[in-house]
Amino acid sequence: MRQVHFVAFLQAQNCTTLPAAWRHPDARTDTYSPEYYQHIARVLEAGKFDIGFFDDRLAMPDMYRGDHAHTVENGIRCVKLDAVTCLMTMAAVTKHLGLGATYSTTYYEPFHVARLFQTVDLMTKGRAGWNVVTSVNDNEARNMGRGDEHLEHDMRYDRADEFMEVVLGHWDSWDDDAIVADKARNLYAHADKVRRIDYKGKFLASRGPFTVPRSVQGHPVVIQAGMSGRGQTFAARWGELLFVVYHDLGTAKAEYAKAKAAVAACGRDPASQKICALFYPVCAATKAEAEDKKAAYDKLPNEIDQLSLLSEALNYDFAKKGLDEPFTDAELTGLGGMQSMRDRVLRAGKKNPTVRDFMQITGRGLLREAWIGGPKEIADKIEEWWSAPACDGFVIGPTHQPGGFEDFVKFVIPELQRRGIYRKEYTGTTLRHHLGLAKPAIGDWKTRGATKT
Amino acid sequence: MRQVHFVAFLQAQNCTTLPAAWRHPDARTDTYSPEYYQHIARVLEAGKFDIGFFDDRLAMPDMYRGDHAHTVENGIRCVKLDAVTCLMTMAAVTKHLGLGATYSTTYYEPFHVARLFQTVDLMTKGRAGWNVVTSVNDNEARNMGRGDEHLEHDMRYDRADEFMEVVLGHWDSWDDDAIVADKARNLYAHADKVRRIDYKGKFLASRGPFTVPRSVQGHPVVIQAGMSGRGQTFAARWGELLFVVYHDLGTAKAEYAKAKAAVAACGRDPASQKICALFYPVCAATKAEAEDKKAAYDKLPNEIDQLSLLSEALNYDFAKKGLDEPFTDAELTGLGGMQSMRDRVLRAGKKNPTVRDFMQITGRGLLREAWIGGPKEIADKIEEWWSAPACDGFVIGPTHQPGGFEDFVKFVIPELQRRGIYRKEYTGTTLRHHLGLAKPAIGDWKTRGATKT
Repeated sequence: MRQVHFVAFLQAQNCTTLPAAWRHPDARTDTYSPEYYQHIARVLEAGKFDIGFFDDRLAMPDMYRGDHAHTVENGIRCVKLDAVTCLMTMAAVTKHLGLGATYSTTYYEPFHVARLFQTVDLMTKGRAGWNVVTSVNDNEARNMGRGDEHLEHDMRYDRADEFMEVVLGHWDSWDDDAIVADKARNLYAHADKVRRIDYKGKFLASRGPFTVPRSVQGHPVVIQAGMSGRGQTFAARWGELLFVVYHDLGTAKAEYAKAKAAVAACGRDPASQKICALFYPVCAATKAEAEDKKAAYDKLPNEIDQLSLLSEALNYDFAKKGLDEPFTDAELTGLGGMQSMRDRVLRAGKKNPTVRDFMQITGRGLLREAWIGGPKEIADKIEEWWSAPACDGFVIGPTHQPGGFEDFVKFVIPELQRRGIYRKEYTGTTLRHHLGLAKPAIGDWKTRGATKT
Repeated sequence: MRQVHFVAFLQAQNCTTLPAAWRHPDARTDTYSPEYYQHIARVLEAGKFDIGFFDDRLAMPDMYRGDHAHTVENGIRCVKLDAVTCLMTMAAVTKHLGLGATYSTTYYEPFHVARLFQTVDLMTKGRAGWNVVTSVNDNEARNMGRGDEHLEHDMRYDRADEFMEVVLGHWDSWDDDAIVADKARNLYAHADKVRRIDYKGKFLASRGPFTVPRSVQGHPVVIQAGMSGRGQTFAARWGELLFVVYHDLGTAKAEYAKAKAAVAACGRDPASQKICALFYPVCAATKAEAEDKKAAYDKLPNEIDQLSLLSEALNYDFAKKGLDEPFTDAELTGLGGMQSMRDRVLRAGKKNPTVRDFMQITGRGLLREAWIGGPKEIADKIEEWWSAPACDGFVIGPTHQPGGFEDFVKFVIPELQRRGIYRKEYTGTTLRHHLGLAKPAIGDWKTRGATKT
């Protein structure tokens, strides 16, 4: 029976996605300690979440005014730890929770990424997920020794396609029954069950043989969040768990149907990709209390939070323009980074939006996609979206940590369990089992078309 | 008071450094499970070890005959997992044990390495070590998308010098008291206590600011093992914990004095680098029992173990020559990889050694540097070397896992504790504390000369 899935959106940083989060009275500020991540892991496992996954950024925001002073003082994502290391502290105190992390296809070799995540999958007994991203940001490039140049947007995805072929190729290098470890016969593994990939693409090459055997769930779950046109094609081909942001139910239903159709167009079973929509729960025992929480939260953000994060997202110093100064056509064309964000602002109507339009329409750095209410209100909305269907589950963004997750697990999860649409106990131990994804057969991804949608 | 230090030499693979190890009757073969690494961690912590550290190799041996069939069948290091991930499973079940891993300066960006290990240092509360290596092997290059070309040996170290400057620069980016996290004043951290490095070298560039704050021990301990001429210079400048192989006490005393002098020549306190010499204990309740163990062990290796690992180490297919065929001068000059190994064979006397000479003189793939005996014999030898002084401590190589460590902790550690030269309990919680290394001051490495020794 179809069940709601929950994905926790985690940050190995000093705040959540919302820079003001660290200033919340209940926020923990020991975000560079293992206890912090382990506490969150226990909360999520108590809430029977499918998975928690970390985003990533290989730089501190400092595009705004070209300097990091404001970032450090305001605590705007200035601490950003290695996510997989934090993930492994969470693995140690859980038995079921899926564990994912973001790793860029731009700055790492696919052999490394394949080995890293397949090892996480072994060390967690089949609970690993890899969130695939392409990197877009000038200050990441500068930290990673690449100067200022980027691959053009669509070409970045062509390279990422090759990256996936290498990673999945390596993951498929060992048959499930390759290892026998027969001491008496001196046979460690069957030679014909371990293969090289001998990959030579336009951008990438890797030979093998891979050095990590298959895990109990086959290989890590591939998580994807690409929202622009070419990113959607990429996600349809490769994604097993899709992280989406839909701004209203009508759009969500249409986009969900479109995404499932795109998966089918690749020759895949649409059920082999689970689509989870982001929202930020603000919940309490009653609707009135939740609204009070929201009002208190809205007092926390600063204008500079927004300007700093917009500068990062669009690779442009927003301090160059006054708040009410419109962008010229040339400036709009020149914006890099997250193109889906720019496109959303343009779709809102003005041909030449101002800085303030960007702030208001994107809500970048503010609490957006907030669902506010007591158990009934939020459970109703979850059920409405999930039944429509507008999604297979939800990505839970925390207003602050760990409180954002604690409240959700305390107030909303029991109501969903009572309604019979969410698990009361885990029924398996692997992430694929939680998500209702089959263990992949060796080479199954090779039949997926690269059809443009 | 000076104390003996112990370092466990770990492999995240299906055998120890000795390929035959998995065939030992007592060897565990679940080397791709967290329980395996966690068991070893508990054994080492019960033995009050300073640190366990993992080696690494980004490829499976397949230089011999140009194919991996023999590797997989004989279990010659064919499984090689991501070491940091395995390390973090060990961190979860220990409170004191230092935890190190090897990461190549050849295939990763220094920003990544700095962030990864500094995060491990935070998540283990100051127990991390990074073993710095440069990579030399054709099949690693092929897996990591680099074709067949390598940097010339000395230039590899010039690049590695830059790598260290970037990593240490990033590690020094946050002052210890940078973070205040004052919610009421909206001051997360002091802007003037977080710096960019703006590094532009001949080979490498990275800008910062770094996104990981300082840890309780300052930054991870830098482990080094370079044994060739240029590698020794590198180690003198950067190494805090040195992993060495000395073949007899006389050589060891001379080499130890030379290494300490080289450290001093860089303007460093010689005590700021601890030198640990590798041996493989074969121990039991009595000397006779230990000798029986050794005899049983010597029955395990195959000839192909040796030929396979020699091919890897020297970047040359040893199947190209008969066992008793001498290498020509041109072939000897052309050998790549671990030049210290080739040089050792040449120093043994023959101008044109044969394949069998390489097998016998290097002992590659065999149990070498074995110290065999009951508690008294091994403790005597430890005390002799350590008092000479020929080293500050020892790297313990396991004949097999976990038995090689279990025996040492059971039979030898109590005897050393009785003699008062080894800790009975940990007296601190950081790796630097165990090793007697001071917490580094910000920028202290900048005064180290790059004097050739």
